[in-house]
Amino acid sequence: MNIRLEQQLALIMELDQLKSVLRRTRVLSDEMRLENSAEHSWHVALMALLLEEHANEPVDISKVVKMLLLHDIVEIDAGDTFVYDTVALQAQEEKELAAADRLFGMLPADQGEALKAVWLEFEQAETAEAKFAKALDRIIPMLMNYNNNGQSWLEHGVAKQQVVKVNQRIEQGSVILWDKAMQVIDEAVAKGWLKP
Amino acid sequence: MNIRLEQQLALIMELDQLKSVLRRTRVLSDEMRLENSAEHSWHVALMALLLEEHANEPVDISKVVKMLLLHDIVEIDAGDTFVYDTVALQAQEEKELAAADRLFGMLPADQGEALKAVWLEFEQAETAEAKFAKALDRIIPMLMNYNNNGQSWLEHGVAKQQVVKVNQRIEQGSVILWDKAMQVIDEAVAKGWLKP
Repeated sequence: MNIRLEQQLALIMELDQLKSVLRRTRVLSDEMRLENSAEHSWHVALMALLLEEHANEPVDISKVVKMLLLHDIVEIDAGDTFVYDTVALQAQEEKELAAADRLFGMLPADQGEALKAVWLEFEQAETAEAKFAKALDRIIPMLMNYNNNGQSWLEHGVAKQQVVKVNQRIEQGSVILWDKAMQVIDEAVAKGWLKP
Repeated sequence: MNIRLEQQLALIMELDQLKSVLRRTRVLSDEMRLENSAEHSWHVALMALLLEEHANEPVDISKVVKMLLLHDIVEIDAGDTFVYDTVALQAQEEKELAAADRLFGMLPADQGEALKAVWLEFEQAETAEAKFAKALDRIIPMLMNYNNNGQSWLEHGVAKQQVVKVNQRIEQGSVILWDKAMQVIDEAVAKGWLKP
């Protein structure tokens, strides 16, 4: 029996649970269904590969992709928190750290520590890779909402100023994507999908 | 207007449709629901990061991950084909090539051609990266079925010999994973989940 492999496979089966963590955004091609965090993670990781050229600084794109594949796995224990729910977000941090300890702790120690460091780097949003990954993670639900007739903004009564405040950090990862985000926000206000 | 960005974003929104392409495997944490190809792609890409050390040869893992993030997008047009449906698989190839032309053709030409080449490399399964990626793509539904009390094998009346025949190419990417697969197959037969 290969102990390292068995530890790794146990985590891989555990990760299946991310497919049952629901977000506030609805799948464009299936408007009845809320998106789950696993399919979101695929979407945003692939987005990173496609948009690498728009990062403010040159990035190690394979690290950006790794961050995005891992970034939400703590939601298996901690759940997803709506980005505009600022009260819940404060309590979330501690739950996510405990989840990271548990999940990465299932791996062989060397591997678990290395991957937890990548996850923490994303959370801290200080390196070029983390800033770009965060920018992508912020802009993709905006684009989906926009292409979904403002669904999540309308359902939750979100206002332009909230969207600008929460998402302006996109600029730190990509000025080009922040320009696009502002264009989307202004058009969403004009269409009545965001409160002015 | 940034034309490259607009082309890339158009594809990213189109890719959302992969979240509505259903596979034959059920989500472990939600047994009522069939897995979709987007969440599967996330799962197997992250699996690649975790199991890199078990590849037969050293691999460029960022290329393996890229292949796995892209490998199923053609199903947006061509649909998913059950791996044990050998008649449907023959017709599938042509549909998938047309889908690749359409989807990668939405990108700026340089980028679309580069990514289509990565997708083709996966399909051809000749390089070390493609063989390892294929091995992972084959073993993950086996592991899920095993952890799901043989669900997909039982639903479709699959026999051991079919599973061995279809999946023995795992060995070309990872002898270690093929050993594990054979152990899973034998245990599934013993439990009555696979016909002997």
